[in-house]
Amino acid sequence: MQSKTGYDRDAVERILRQVGAEGRTSLTAPEGKQVCDAYGISTPAERLATSPESAVTLADEIGLPVVLKIVSPDILHKTEAGGVLVGLKTAKQVEAGFATIIDNAKAYNADAEIIGVQVQQLLTSGQEVIIGATTDDTFGKIVAFGLGGVLVEVLKDVTFRLAPTSADEAMSMIDGIAAAEILRGVRGAPPVDRDALAGLIQRVSDLVTDYPQLAEVDLNPVLATPDGATAVDVRILVDTEPRKQPVQFTQQEILATMNRIMKPSAIAVIGASAEDGKIGNSVMKNLVNGGYQGEIYPINPKADAILDLKAFASIADVPGDIDVAVFAIPAKFVPQALEEAGAKGCAGAILIPSGFGETGNQELQDEVVAIAHKHGMRILGPNIYGYYYTPENLSATFCTPYDVKGGVALSSQSGGIGMAILGFSRSAGMGVSAIVGVGNKADIDEDDLLTFFETDDNTNLIAMHLEDLKDGRTFAETAKRVSLHKPVVVLKAGRTAQGAKAASSHTGALAGNDRVYDDILRQSGVIRAPGLNDMLEYARGIPLLATPKGENVVIITGAGGSGVLLSDACVDNGLTLMEIPADLDAAFRKFIPPFGAAGNPVDITGGEPPATYRNTIALGLDDERIHSLILGYWHTIVTPPMVFAELVVDVVEEYRAKGIEKPIVASLSGDVEVEEASEYLYRHGVVAYPYTTEKPVAVLGAKYRWARSAGLLS
Amino acid sequence: MQSKTGYDRDAVERILRQVGAEGRTSLTAPEGKQVCDAYGISTPAERLATSPESAVTLADEIGLPVVLKIVSPDILHKTEAGGVLVGLKTAKQVEAGFATIIDNAKAYNADAEIIGVQVQQLLTSGQEVIIGATTDDTFGKIVAFGLGGVLVEVLKDVTFRLAPTSADEAMSMIDGIAAAEILRGVRGAPPVDRDALAGLIQRVSDLVTDYPQLAEVDLNPVLATPDGATAVDVRILVDTEPRKQPVQFTQQEILATMNRIMKPSAIAVIGASAEDGKIGNSVMKNLVNGGYQGEIYPINPKADAILDLKAFASIADVPGDIDVAVFAIPAKFVPQALEEAGAKGCAGAILIPSGFGETGNQELQDEVVAIAHKHGMRILGPNIYGYYYTPENLSATFCTPYDVKGGVALSSQSGGIGMAILGFSRSAGMGVSAIVGVGNKADIDEDDLLTFFETDDNTNLIAMHLEDLKDGRTFAETAKRVSLHKPVVVLKAGRTAQGAKAASSHTGALAGNDRVYDDILRQSGVIRAPGLNDMLEYARGIPLLATPKGENVVIITGAGGSGVLLSDACVDNGLTLMEIPADLDAAFRKFIPPFGAAGNPVDITGGEPPATYRNTIALGLDDERIHSLILGYWHTIVTPPMVFAELVVDVVEEYRAKGIEKPIVASLSGDVEVEEASEYLYRHGVVAYPYTTEKPVAVLGAKYRWARSAGLLS
Repeated sequence: MQSKTGYDRDAVERILRQVGAEGRTSLTAPEGKQVCDAYGISTPAERLATSPESAVTLADEIGLPVVLKIVSPDILHKTEAGGVLVGLKTAKQVEAGFATIIDNAKAYNADAEIIGVQVQQLLTSGQEVIIGATTDDTFGKIVAFGLGGVLVEVLKDVTFRLAPTSADEAMSMIDGIAAAEILRGVRGAPPVDRDALAGLIQRVSDLVTDYPQLAEVDLNPVLATPDGATAVDVRILVDTEPRKQPVQFTQQEILATMNRIMKPSAIAVIGASAEDGKIGNSVMKNLVNGGYQGEIYPINPKADAILDLKAFASIADVPGDIDVAVFAIPAKFVPQALEEAGAKGCAGAILIPSGFGETGNQELQDEVVAIAHKHGMRILGPNIYGYYYTPENLSATFCTPYDVKGGVALSSQSGGIGMAILGFSRSAGMGVSAIVGVGNKADIDEDDLLTFFETDDNTNLIAMHLEDLKDGRTFAETAKRVSLHKPVVVLKAGRTAQGAKAASSHTGALAGNDRVYDDILRQSGVIRAPGLNDMLEYARGIPLLATPKGENVVIITGAGGSGVLLSDACVDNGLTLMEIPADLDAAFRKFIPPFGAAGNPVDITGGEPPATYRNTIALGLDDERIHSLILGYWHTIVTPPMVFAELVVDVVEEYRAKGIEKPIVASLSGDVEVEEASEYLYRHGVVAYPYTTEKPVAVLGAKYRWARSAGLLS
Repeated sequence: MQSKTGYDRDAVERILRQVGAEGRTSLTAPEGKQVCDAYGISTPAERLATSPESAVTLADEIGLPVVLKIVSPDILHKTEAGGVLVGLKTAKQVEAGFATIIDNAKAYNADAEIIGVQVQQLLTSGQEVIIGATTDDTFGKIVAFGLGGVLVEVLKDVTFRLAPTSADEAMSMIDGIAAAEILRGVRGAPPVDRDALAGLIQRVSDLVTDYPQLAEVDLNPVLATPDGATAVDVRILVDTEPRKQPVQFTQQEILATMNRIMKPSAIAVIGASAEDGKIGNSVMKNLVNGGYQGEIYPINPKADAILDLKAFASIADVPGDIDVAVFAIPAKFVPQALEEAGAKGCAGAILIPSGFGETGNQELQDEVVAIAHKHGMRILGPNIYGYYYTPENLSATFCTPYDVKGGVALSSQSGGIGMAILGFSRSAGMGVSAIVGVGNKADIDEDDLLTFFETDDNTNLIAMHLEDLKDGRTFAETAKRVSLHKPVVVLKAGRTAQGAKAASSHTGALAGNDRVYDDILRQSGVIRAPGLNDMLEYARGIPLLATPKGENVVIITGAGGSGVLLSDACVDNGLTLMEIPADLDAAFRKFIPPFGAAGNPVDITGGEPPATYRNTIALGLDDERIHSLILGYWHTIVTPPMVFAELVVDVVEEYRAKGIEKPIVASLSGDVEVEEASEYLYRHGVVAYPYTTEKPVAVLGAKYRWARSAGLLS
């Protein structure tokens, strides 16, 4: 087997030239084997025998049992010709088999040119797995790994990664299937050679990366044994038409434009209106009332002034420079106005109107993108509510202004979801840096936004609702980079077949295979939210929580019943309940009644005074072996809700002053006063909810998922 | 094979007597086979040959290939003695094999009495499955079904039911495993004989029901083929010590007692106190301030009156009859006071104090139960907050009174969860008939409550938080009966290993295998809530929704993005998006803009006036083929939130007046005004939430789960 760096590219290129010359879209089995050889992918040994004696010698070299196959350019259907014998176990059988095959071949076609008989290794044992690479519409080259066999076909236990795949990622695939345990050896079976499997995944991944014209490579089955892995069958398909590459901008280009769009010095509103209820009126009001301090130029040929601001007939008439043009005119008028905005040197065109791709008018959409790009301008939309950027008091939208400043940037593909983001944020008092509608994503999409928010000091978390990705590979690569320092939360709508169908009739989004999305979003360090409310709660809570230093989670609860449900929630959210060492257990026991339970959860019992909560929480913060706390509160007369909330904030701030910060979440069980107490806690950085044990733990779990994938846990 | 009613009980009893006489706990293989024969469970054919010729004849009758085994009372280790030959394929091999085995046996033990050689059918093909029965700590006799093989062992794809199992239930097991498709035939394989498998499950189920001393019956593997199913290996274990049966009350006894407890004419508070902050004071205040109209007798040897009510030194001194005694005294004083309450003829003792089983004092707990039962009295608790029954304005608890009357009855095993129930109910304005703490469940448990609520006209849904079931079988049987007319929602805490561990240190609850709980709760018609908040939302929402008449769900949405997420949520919750027929599609299209999407979701688009919502919703109510509606609202100036809410309620009431009621839920996307609109909708029977597409669909899904299992869908 050749070393990874020693791939025989000449051999592959020779074969591909041959395939191309013949106009074929698939490789023959021998070609497939040669490609495997060139990339160090092991296949069953085979040799050409030209006499019974050499067949016996070769079979002995390869190891019995073997398969014998006629080799003749004139015999295509070998089995029909009696030219294949399987499972020959002895030298005698091989010798006789050689003769039988030659006889059969001659009987079948007396004129056939006979080159010899192929002696091929017959693999009789090993765990069947599947390794493949394919070309995904969203993500381009991806590799797949799964167990073989009928059960797995039914259970669809397959995992995917972007190619090229690192060694760690390849190994994570082998661990990432539900039946991973089988490969480690069960019922006394020895484990398979996982390194060999990971190596095979990487070789396939390298192959399709080096030769993008390979549309599909399927090794199915691969037989994995304790000492290696061999691809028994190889199928390779070639794509004769190269894929269309999406338009790419450099990071620098994106930042230059996005900075002007998000922090504009001057904005023109094309279709500005003085008439209540018109979109062009709402946009004007929101810009003005939102407190935006830059220049605002209403563009309307029929008005002198709008909201006391001088109006212009055309953007060309505006004296100063303009960064952003917001379009509040019907779709059919957009191209001409866009030409003018481009000529004026605008960086961004915010296309609020619908009537483009989403209603089937793809031509018009392509036209406006071409116009924008001709002028070096980028388009946001079309078919959007606009966008907010609170550090600039910028509400460039027909919705209502939003002014609670904070570190969360959100985007949505759909207007309805954008409104839910706005309402939730206002209701929860969530500090937001930006809310951006991306709509049809004719041009600017999520990876552009990620690139801007990455460098934006006003943003510390990005949450995105999306129905598809126009360029999944760029998104994945960008998210992987950004998520190393800022959490990226994604709500991918159209997870299910029904949802995907709805998405395609809604925005024409192609939702793709959700398992592929799921695996690759995870590979990209993205925290995937299962639903809309989860996305919103993750966005709100994650930035408040300190980043944990390790996996040891401790539950401290006054309500034993909450402790049980919180424990269930920890398992559901991939959190590890710390095994409490004896000395720490003893330390907790000092503070709790004898019938309370130490261990984890630490059950301080319900009748306890504030001091018991305080002391145990302080211990949880103090002890370095504990990395995060989940609190379960039970409303009693002895420790009323606000007393609990205030003592928690006190002790947290006391430790914060000492430089000790750990993520703390809380579930409050009690009468309605727990609502006020939860809000107080939340405002002070403790993610707290009443009447639910699930939500606080889900937010902590999301924080952990991010911290793990960003490599922040020790 | 014998008919089901033709079981050969004599044969089984003979074997069990023999096993018992020998003090064994397991059956030998031949005994296992005989039991199978007696219950019509097919095993590989076998006959005794006494000569090489008869072996050949028998092998021919049975069908080749066969296995030969020595039969000798003096040779226990057959394989060691060379007494087993597997896979004999020809008459010649059988003939020679007979001689070989006899020779080997004689060589092994020259003195052995040789009865002959067993000729056994060798099954070579078929799908491996496992059928078994075991004795579960919680549920007693249960049957299990799963696929065999190593993959399934790893993936734990097994399903359970209570024995005895009906034909439908047995078939539902075969459909209930994840890999069910395999049994229907995949990759061109023929389907297995599912009826034979279901029959086998029933026979095993009948066997352990008829003979409870059979602790375990394992048919592993069973080989299923297109024409039948044969148990290849049989293992049967016998339990020499019969299980302790829980104390059982008749339905009549339970109702008599529970009616007196829930609707008491007189209540004594033992340990009543005038001192603020004491439990005995809180209980008194809540009874009085809650508006309870029956007699209240404070029991306190040191007081003349408490809250202006005459106090008594002992319950024996009270002049009238007493139904309920609430205990607010330390555990150690309970036994004596309980004797007095029993002597007084109380129906129920409400044991608020802790310090019993949950702190390890099981002896005291057993003692008080014995005292109560001696007097024909039942115990609620100990270790509880008490209970509420709003139709009687009864707040027999140390928490705060609750007076919002309605049809939801709730119970909790834990006090903390009880407080969360109280707070949530008050906050949501949820109408409640009862909230009951069951705590240690020393006596009264969930099945007693179910039996009461079943007949209670004030209750139309029962929601229960539990950590274990003291008598799972009675619960399952009761729930099965009750859930046919009233939905039963269960939050089972301790689902996970960590949660179960926490439960056992909290209340000593034995959480059991969650898959067993899950399957049997479903079999019992119970709607299982995944978390605390889900239980509360199901309890609140389900009674408001009309019972659907069929599976056709239609989404009508102003926000296309919500439509996608709502579709995902439908799949997650097992709901079926109706395939809209052409005429209905055309009817919807009349009301929506040309760029809106009919189909399902019906996307009316965001800019539409109230009439579009109204017309499409009216159509959804009007058309008989549609069975339920999910609404997605998008906040716009054209149709503001309260306008939407009011129009929905209008049209719903219009159709209600015509006798047309369908379940309707709504997800509202928009600015904070959608919160008020959601509340308005909820108050008018449309289950509506802001900022979430998941919750409304989850509640509808829960309603459907109930309607399906209660057989209410056509």
